[in-house]
Amino acid sequence: MASLITRLDASAPDFASRLSSLLAFEASEDEAIDRAAAQILASVKASGDTAVLEATNRFDRLQASSVADLELSQQALQQALDSLAPERRLALETAAQRVRAYHERQKQECGSAGFSYTEADGTVLGQKVTPLDRVGIYVPGGKAAYPSSVLMNAIPAKVAGVGEIIMVVPTPDGVQNPLVLAAAAIAGVDRVFTIGGAQAVGALAYGTATIPQVDKIVGPGNAYVAAAKRRVFGTVGIDMIAGPSEILVLCDGSTDPDWVAMDLFSQAEHDELAQSILLCPDQAYLDAVQASIVKLLPQMPRQEVIRTSLANRGALIKVEDMQQACEIANSIAAEHLEISAAHPQQWADQIRHAGAMFLGRYSSEALGDYCAGPNHVLPTSRTARFSSPLGVYDFQKRSSMIHVSEQGAQTLGKVAAELAYGEGLQAHARSAELRLK
Amino acid sequence: MASLITRLDASAPDFASRLSSLLAFEASEDEAIDRAAAQILASVKASGDTAVLEATNRFDRLQASSVADLELSQQALQQALDSLAPERRLALETAAQRVRAYHERQKQECGSAGFSYTEADGTVLGQKVTPLDRVGIYVPGGKAAYPSSVLMNAIPAKVAGVGEIIMVVPTPDGVQNPLVLAAAAIAGVDRVFTIGGAQAVGALAYGTATIPQVDKIVGPGNAYVAAAKRRVFGTVGIDMIAGPSEILVLCDGSTDPDWVAMDLFSQAEHDELAQSILLCPDQAYLDAVQASIVKLLPQMPRQEVIRTSLANRGALIKVEDMQQACEIANSIAAEHLEISAAHPQQWADQIRHAGAMFLGRYSSEALGDYCAGPNHVLPTSRTARFSSPLGVYDFQKRSSMIHVSEQGAQTLGKVAAELAYGEGLQAHARSAELRLK
Repeated sequence: MASLITRLDASAPDFASRLSSLLAFEASEDEAIDRAAAQILASVKASGDTAVLEATNRFDRLQASSVADLELSQQALQQALDSLAPERRLALETAAQRVRAYHERQKQECGSAGFSYTEADGTVLGQKVTPLDRVGIYVPGGKAAYPSSVLMNAIPAKVAGVGEIIMVVPTPDGVQNPLVLAAAAIAGVDRVFTIGGAQAVGALAYGTATIPQVDKIVGPGNAYVAAAKRRVFGTVGIDMIAGPSEILVLCDGSTDPDWVAMDLFSQAEHDELAQSILLCPDQAYLDAVQASIVKLLPQMPRQEVIRTSLANRGALIKVEDMQQACEIANSIAAEHLEISAAHPQQWADQIRHAGAMFLGRYSSEALGDYCAGPNHVLPTSRTARFSSPLGVYDFQKRSSMIHVSEQGAQTLGKVAAELAYGEGLQAHARSAELRLK
Repeated sequence: MASLITRLDASAPDFASRLSSLLAFEASEDEAIDRAAAQILASVKASGDTAVLEATNRFDRLQASSVADLELSQQALQQALDSLAPERRLALETAAQRVRAYHERQKQECGSAGFSYTEADGTVLGQKVTPLDRVGIYVPGGKAAYPSSVLMNAIPAKVAGVGEIIMVVPTPDGVQNPLVLAAAAIAGVDRVFTIGGAQAVGALAYGTATIPQVDKIVGPGNAYVAAAKRRVFGTVGIDMIAGPSEILVLCDGSTDPDWVAMDLFSQAEHDELAQSILLCPDQAYLDAVQASIVKLLPQMPRQEVIRTSLANRGALIKVEDMQQACEIANSIAAEHLEISAAHPQQWADQIRHAGAMFLGRYSSEALGDYCAGPNHVLPTSRTARFSSPLGVYDFQKRSSMIHVSEQGAQTLGKVAAELAYGEGLQAHARSAELRLK
C-alpha cells in the first residue's frame, strides 16, 4: 500500500525531478470518447431537435416527446428556491450577493467602459467594450452537481450584461437537483433545458428549432462534454477545459496544523486526481500536519477519496525558507494558493503565477469556493502561467475604434502605403493613397 | 465563368439564406495534416533539439549542424534594420511607435493595475494582474511574411511587460526576410530562431535544450502550424486560429466609389478566400462601385487573386437603409467594419459585433492594418461575437486575492459550511468551521 502522503525535501538533489513527476498530469485524450462526441455533434448539427431529443431520451433514460418538454419554466426554478430550508436559501443568497459585488467591482475596474482619445490632427482612436449576446452554461447532473458553480458561471455573465443566459443540466432518470435550480433562479438564468452531454453542447453551439444558438459555452462537464467543447471551439467561444483541482499551501509553521490538514483534505475530497501540496520551512511543523492528517482522516465521510488523492498526488515538502517556497510556488502555478503565514502580503508580492491567492490563516480555500466573492472557476494544471479566473471579461469582447481625420489620413496614408508596397500588397497601398490630397 | 461580384438585395425573400451561404466557411480539418503535425510534436517532445534540427533541415532544405546555429544574433537583426532604405525604416518605426502608443493606452485603461478593496470587517478582496513570463511569436516564412505582423504581435507583449519574447520564423533554403528581422529589432524581440512549422510550435510549447519553453504562442501560420497550435493548447496558451480575412463596408452612398472599390480590393488581394462585402441603401451607388471595380481591377498587380476572391466570396448588397445595414453587420460580426458615411458615430453606436470599426471615409482599413495604432490581429469568421483584437490583455493574466479577516471568517465560514454540507463536501465545511471561534 502507498504511504499516507509523499514527503519531499527541496534541498534533495532529485527534488526537481520528483516534484515534476508528482505534478505530471496528462489529460487522457480518449479517442473513443472523442469520436462518440463528434458523432453526436454531427447528428445535432444535421437534425437539430430530433437528435437532441433522441440522445437525451436514450442517455438519460427519459421519455420526453419534444425538446420543448425538456425546458423548465421560471416557475419551476422559483419553486425549487422556495423549497429550500431557510438557512440554506439564505446562505445561497448571501453567496450570490457577495459574488455579484466582487464581479461588479471587477467590471468597474477592468476597463469595461472602453476608452477613446483624440490625436492632435483630429484622429480618434479607442476601444469599445460590449457584452456577449447569449451565453450557454453547462451544469453537470448527478453527483458533481454544484449549485455554487451555477452562481460562479452565471453571475459574471449577468454582471457583464449578457442578453440571455441559457443553462443546460442533464436530469438522468428525471431526477432534478433543487439546489442547482434554486441557484439558477437566484443568478437570473433566463432559460433552463434538462439536457446534457455532447448533445447539449451541440444544441448550444449550432442552435436548434427550440434551443437558441449561443455565442459562448462555459461550465464543467465530463469527458464527452469536454471533447464536444473542444470541437465546437471557433463556432462558439469556450472557457478553459479544466483539469483536476489543486491546492498549494505555503505555511510559515505558525498556523494550527489541524487547519492546514483540513485545507488539504478540502481539495483532496473532490476526487482521486485532486492535488494537495504543503510547503513549509519547518520540518517539525510538517510532522505535526502529518499527525493531524492521521488524526482527522477517519472522521471524514469522504475519507477514501481523500486517502487516495493524498497518497497518489499529495505532498508535504520541506523548504529552505519562505523565499524558496515562493519560487517553487511560481514554478507550480497552482490553481489555489494559500499563504498561511504571518504578514502574508510580503510573500504574495513575490508570487507571479496562481489562479487565486488566499492570504493569512483565516482565508481557507473553502471560503473562496463558496462565498468570499471572487470566482471559483480557476486555471488548473499550471495554466495560471497564462490564464485567469473566470470573470466579467470572459463575457465581454472589445472592438477597436479607428476614426482617422482627413489630415490624419495624409500622414498615416504615406506610412501605410510605404509598408504595403514593402509587403507586396498594392491594393492596400492604393487604398491609402487614394485618400491623399 | 462566375460573375464579377454577387449582387444581393436585403428585401428579397431568399436574402437570409443567400447571405448565409455566402458567409459559410468551414475550416477544412485535414486529417492527414493533423496527423503529421501530431507526429512532429511527439518527436520534438521526445527528442528535443535533435528532432527540431532534423525537421528544419529536411523541410527548409538547410544543413545546420545544431539548433544553436539556427539562432540569429541581435546584431543580425540590427544589421537587417540598418540595411533598409531610410523611408522604409522610418515608416516601420513610425508604425511601431503608433502601435506602442495605442497599446500603452490600452494597458493603462484596461485594469492592468488590478484592484483591491477592504470590507467593513477588514476582509480584503482584489485582483492582481501580472504579465506572462515568456511568449513565442510565430512568423510565417515565404510569401506571407509580414513585418507588420511582427510589430502587431510583439509590441502588445512588450507593453504588457512580458519578460522574454522568442520569435520563430522559417527560412526555407536559408532565405531571410530583412523587413521581418528589422521589425523584430524595432519591436524588441529578445531571441530569434529560424525554424518553422509544427517543429517550431513543439519547441516553444515543450522547450528543448536550446529553445526555452514559452507560456503562450501567438501569430499566424499555415495548416500544419494551426494544427500544432490546437494540439499544444493547454500546455501553453494560444491566440485564436484565424480564418480568412474579411471586410464589411457600410456606405451611405456619399464616398467616392473608387475609394470603396479599392478598400474591397485591399481585402480581396490577401487570398482567394478573403471576403469583401459592401452594404448600401443606394442602388445607383452600388452600380457605381461595380463600375469602379471594372475600371480599377486591370491596374492591380494581384488582380487574379482579387478577381477570384470577389467572384466567389464578395458581394454588393442593397439594403433598405443604414439602420438595416447595421442589423446585418451585427449578424455578420465582421473582422473589419468600415462605416464610410457622414456622421458615422451614429451607426457605430448600433454595432455590437466587429473586430475593428473604421469610421468615416478617411479611415480605410489599410491604415489600421499598418499604422493607425490598434492591433491588426482581429477575430475572423464571426468570432467577433465572442472574441477581441489581440491586445495587452492577451499577455497578462489575473489572480484573485482573498485576505479574510478573523472577523470575516466568522460570517463567511457559516455560509460556506452551510453550502458545503449541501454539496456533500464535508472537508470543505470543516475547513471553514475550524476557523469559527
